[in-house]
Amino acid sequence: MSAPAVILSHPQMGENIGAAARAMKNFGLSELRLIAPSCRWPNDRALALAAGAGDIVNNAKVYPDVAAALADVRLVLATTARDRDVVREILTPEAAARRLRAAEREGIASAILFGGERAGLDNDELSLADAVITIPTAEFPSLNLGQAVLLLGYEWLKAADFTPASRTRKSIAVPATRQELVDLFDHLERELDAGGFFFPAEKKEAMVRNIRAMILRAGLSDQEARTIRGMIVALVKNKYRGQKKER
Amino acid sequence: MSAPAVILSHPQMGENIGAAARAMKNFGLSELRLIAPSCRWPNDRALALAAGAGDIVNNAKVYPDVAAALADVRLVLATTARDRDVVREILTPEAAARRLRAAEREGIASAILFGGERAGLDNDELSLADAVITIPTAEFPSLNLGQAVLLLGYEWLKAADFTPASRTRKSIAVPATRQELVDLFDHLERELDAGGFFFPAEKKEAMVRNIRAMILRAGLSDQEARTIRGMIVALVKNKYRGQKKER
Repeated sequence: MSAPAVILSHPQMGENIGAAARAMKNFGLSELRLIAPSCRWPNDRALALAAGAGDIVNNAKVYPDVAAALADVRLVLATTARDRDVVREILTPEAAARRLRAAEREGIASAILFGGERAGLDNDELSLADAVITIPTAEFPSLNLGQAVLLLGYEWLKAADFTPASRTRKSIAVPATRQELVDLFDHLERELDAGGFFFPAEKKEAMVRNIRAMILRAGLSDQEARTIRGMIVALVKNKYRGQKKER
Repeated sequence: MSAPAVILSHPQMGENIGAAARAMKNFGLSELRLIAPSCRWPNDRALALAAGAGDIVNNAKVYPDVAAALADVRLVLATTARDRDVVREILTPEAAARRLRAAEREGIASAILFGGERAGLDNDELSLADAVITIPTAEFPSLNLGQAVLLLGYEWLKAADFTPASRTRKSIAVPATRQELVDLFDHLERELDAGGFFFPAEKKEAMVRNIRAMILRAGLSDQEARTIRGMIVALVKNKYRGQKKER
């Protein structure tokens, strides 16, 4: 187990500590450390906001200063919105997550350091970090502490998440076979022909091509192909009875 | 302008609407639509929580139902945590953002649909979406409305953000030239030699190689190379004076 510790430096509001704990739990982080919280501690509001993540709040360790909180940590990434005049590596949250996952694979203890609500991390705190993380924002950057923890947690989980970018619920349906689709095309085109849909006749071939493309694009399951055939039957039903009467 | 509209269906708390607006502004989204909010509207708490994003709250349009809210939208992606028994495409937030950016490039109006705090989107609402978005979480999924909007907004901004994964503050420093580094190596190795550091002598070559690698790994700027040479001068200063006296 070497998921990164989340370290909050000089947090001011219990609510934000609770929100951070909840965000951590959402994304599989569990070790919370606090550096000299300026709210009282333990804190009821932190527990209330943590919702189901009360265990993270209850197990949080409190340290007097940043050096104590980081003593056993070997890779420290610090979040900061501000540019400072030190030559230090700046990572995107995504790149930071990849680096933390690499440390995890190698069994290297790591931490993400977050500054207090008002002023962020001070230069002394930043001077112990291997690199800083800057979260990209639009022209209006006002992420609060809980949001910053949420985004880093999200990237941490994503860095080991292999959910395909796009998928459909395969378990409840298999794609229709080509035979089922050809039967559907034949059925539909026969009834459209009967209804005088293909006009003028020389355009029929192109119209058929477009209709087939439209249907294929929907990626029908076998059940859906059967449903559409049932819809065609329902649509033409009364029409033939009527035609017979008229003849 | 065809950034996606953010549509909140049946939101219950003004606070969450305000948090959503603030998250939107952080990541460059501006159009907020509300479907039948169950809190009173306009809402003071929404404005308070929006902080600097009050304009988004004030410009939010209210619609009676999902069909009205989506009438002019051509690409609808709906967030949902629940699996439902419909064959529908499921996207990661990242893939959803790429699709929304593609729509933006083609001038196609798009929207991200979020359900109410308690129950999420109902099946009727989902039935108007082109695809659903599921946010990956750990075993404890309890993202609130503001957090879901935050993560989708973040991915929206990221999809058009070209910040390099890793960078250093180039504007304030240029990397040292090889000559500056060679001068530093020579200076350091000469003084280490004088201090009897390279022992036993047959290991000197390997020791030099390791020291040079360690220094190169730091990626020194020209100023930093000069600083280290100054440090060497400072470290050896009194030592030579002392040696002269002893002789």
